[in-house]
Amino acid sequence: MIYADNAATTKMSCTAIDAMLPYMNELYGNPSSLYGLGQRAKEALEEARERIAACIGASPKEITFTSGGSEADNQAIRSAALLGARKEKRHIISTAFEHHAILHTLKKLEGEGFEVELLPVGELGTITAQQVAEAIREDTALVTIMYANNEIGSVLPIPEIGAVCRGRDVLFHTDAVQAAGHLPIDVKAQNIDLLSLSAHKFHGPKGAGVLYARQGIPLSSIIEGGAQERGKRAGTENVPAIVGMAAALEEACAHMEENTTKVSALRDRLIAGLSQIPHSALNGDPVSRLPGNVNFCFEGIEGESLLLLLDDRGICASSGSACTSGSLDPSHVLLAIGRPHEAAHGSLRLSLCEENTEADVDAILKAVPEIVGYLRNMSPLWKDKVSGQKEFVL
Amino acid sequence: MIYADNAATTKMSCTAIDAMLPYMNELYGNPSSLYGLGQRAKEALEEARERIAACIGASPKEITFTSGGSEADNQAIRSAALLGARKEKRHIISTAFEHHAILHTLKKLEGEGFEVELLPVGELGTITAQQVAEAIREDTALVTIMYANNEIGSVLPIPEIGAVCRGRDVLFHTDAVQAAGHLPIDVKAQNIDLLSLSAHKFHGPKGAGVLYARQGIPLSSIIEGGAQERGKRAGTENVPAIVGMAAALEEACAHMEENTTKVSALRDRLIAGLSQIPHSALNGDPVSRLPGNVNFCFEGIEGESLLLLLDDRGICASSGSACTSGSLDPSHVLLAIGRPHEAAHGSLRLSLCEENTEADVDAILKAVPEIVGYLRNMSPLWKDKVSGQKEFVL
Repeated sequence: MIYADNAATTKMSCTAIDAMLPYMNELYGNPSSLYGLGQRAKEALEEARERIAACIGASPKEITFTSGGSEADNQAIRSAALLGARKEKRHIISTAFEHHAILHTLKKLEGEGFEVELLPVGELGTITAQQVAEAIREDTALVTIMYANNEIGSVLPIPEIGAVCRGRDVLFHTDAVQAAGHLPIDVKAQNIDLLSLSAHKFHGPKGAGVLYARQGIPLSSIIEGGAQERGKRAGTENVPAIVGMAAALEEACAHMEENTTKVSALRDRLIAGLSQIPHSALNGDPVSRLPGNVNFCFEGIEGESLLLLLDDRGICASSGSACTSGSLDPSHVLLAIGRPHEAAHGSLRLSLCEENTEADVDAILKAVPEIVGYLRNMSPLWKDKVSGQKEFVL
Repeated sequence: MIYADNAATTKMSCTAIDAMLPYMNELYGNPSSLYGLGQRAKEALEEARERIAACIGASPKEITFTSGGSEADNQAIRSAALLGARKEKRHIISTAFEHHAILHTLKKLEGEGFEVELLPVGELGTITAQQVAEAIREDTALVTIMYANNEIGSVLPIPEIGAVCRGRDVLFHTDAVQAAGHLPIDVKAQNIDLLSLSAHKFHGPKGAGVLYARQGIPLSSIIEGGAQERGKRAGTENVPAIVGMAAALEEACAHMEENTTKVSALRDRLIAGLSQIPHSALNGDPVSRLPGNVNFCFEGIEGESLLLLLDDRGICASSGSACTSGSLDPSHVLLAIGRPHEAAHGSLRLSLCEENTEADVDAILKAVPEIVGYLRNMSPLWKDKVSGQKEFVL
């Protein structure tokens, strides 16, 4: 099997699993308990907090553990919105191609009297700090812009956006779910006020995430109850998963440079090879791009058929993001970069990690052109197009 | 070590760990993904849903997975409140000794225009269906009453309360976090509309819970984003933990009768033995009681000292609940059953499971009287009391 869908989720690393296991059947105490078994769990929790903080240039007290990236995104935006509303600031700036954890939360806030402005992301799927500077108003409560896009892999100019926001005294949140463990993050140097990350995107466990909030920014709870996480997130802490997350993030950050070199070389071979397919187009920024992300539209190809035939050959890939795969709607990301509806249904995302090999790339480069050719041969519509009876949409 | 704090959290069973592991490093696909690896995760998720539904007499589609009991409690109450508000029903009935996941959510709703009525729970820490019947009004949106209390172990008359609520067409939620896996639950027979449970209270993993909602009751999301859980709970599903939860709940339910027999016998020996300590008092209902729960007040004893000295002897126990252990406030549960402030600081909770032994009980019955005697001998205040210069508060 060739797993090329690491943007959807990753295989847990042995390091992460080994770190977790003792907290499942030996050191299983509740971190709120006074006795030794509980205190050892508490120490593990706080050590994980320190290690994760160190990976992103934060202080441990700025780290709140959540059940994942979506919860962290929701809490970040809700917290900033509440702070804004207290000062009569109800304008929020974001982009048209954020993850739905952002967009759907913003949609709800619109219903609660907030004004949401989604910046256009252009053909390459990025924005400039200048766009943000021009959009900021006196009543802007929050700028929330993803670190890197989950479908097309564009990496956004986060340090520049951070500097603009800090200069204008506007809170800046970044959904770094696709970036954490893959790109260098330094919340202080990059002027990030709020940041979300998710463990299962960097070989950590599902069910664990982090919300970083710069010291002095009060978070609002979205889950009320016990006093865990300084009263900002109720519920018994998921110690095994948090310990596993810390181990995975540390491992990813320690090997980031070599992984980036290896993975981006594989990515570039894939991009070069797939670009040879006639009537194909790379989606996303060709330069400022996640090391593992490859995303193409193939004219005349319906995404789902392509995925199923790839699966037959043991290749795991996706069309759009996993989070939206149940939906029949075209990708909002591809629409945002100007792809027509038809093409927005038909993209192929391959997302690699350091466990992928040259042989994987070879196999993908053999399979995709064959399958694309096969599917196009099957399609009367495609034959009309190539015979000039209909214009290409790409 | 003698672990006697199973109400705080439990050691994961081998069954649960063994069930989880394959989904961490082999079948790690995202259940939203189309390819085989994703679909196998999806099948595991749906099989877990079926198995959990079967354990509580629900249909699989009535089961929503959450990150734990607190999240399930929050979502249940928020959903019911929203449904009530749409019909101008803003009255909510609960009890004074619910878990803080309930009480704090209700407190927030009070700030949003709801009227919350907390029924008194009497000296034994229970309520009657009659109390509920008398409290229900035309504008009652929800009755939320715990299945069993987490501190003092009282088991409430849930089927009777359910019948009253169904008869009056009022939604009934029960926080069954302490009951699930330990007491028989049948949501249909017991007329339960909404129910929360948490995996780590029955030897399942931390980070997984369930919100059951009777078919036809629309849930509101508290975490927005992807379309997971039929759009009611965003975020990549924590497949390993959910599979582990299903295995643990099935195992607990399969052995419930024998576990109850064994554990309640241990409990009764403990209660009988600790009752011999002068100036001691059992908290909670002596008859309708969780099989593993023992909770005592010892006059003149400060809870924390007792716990630390028990820990020195390798006995893990708690004072109040783990969720409130960071707090200096007296237990709201003990205050609710009429214990004076002084006593509400000084309770001892021992919560047993089927892994505890007669030898554990022997050791506890040796340790507690010795430590209580030691602490009382150290206390000038206690000497004043026993010499008649001050009245006992118990």
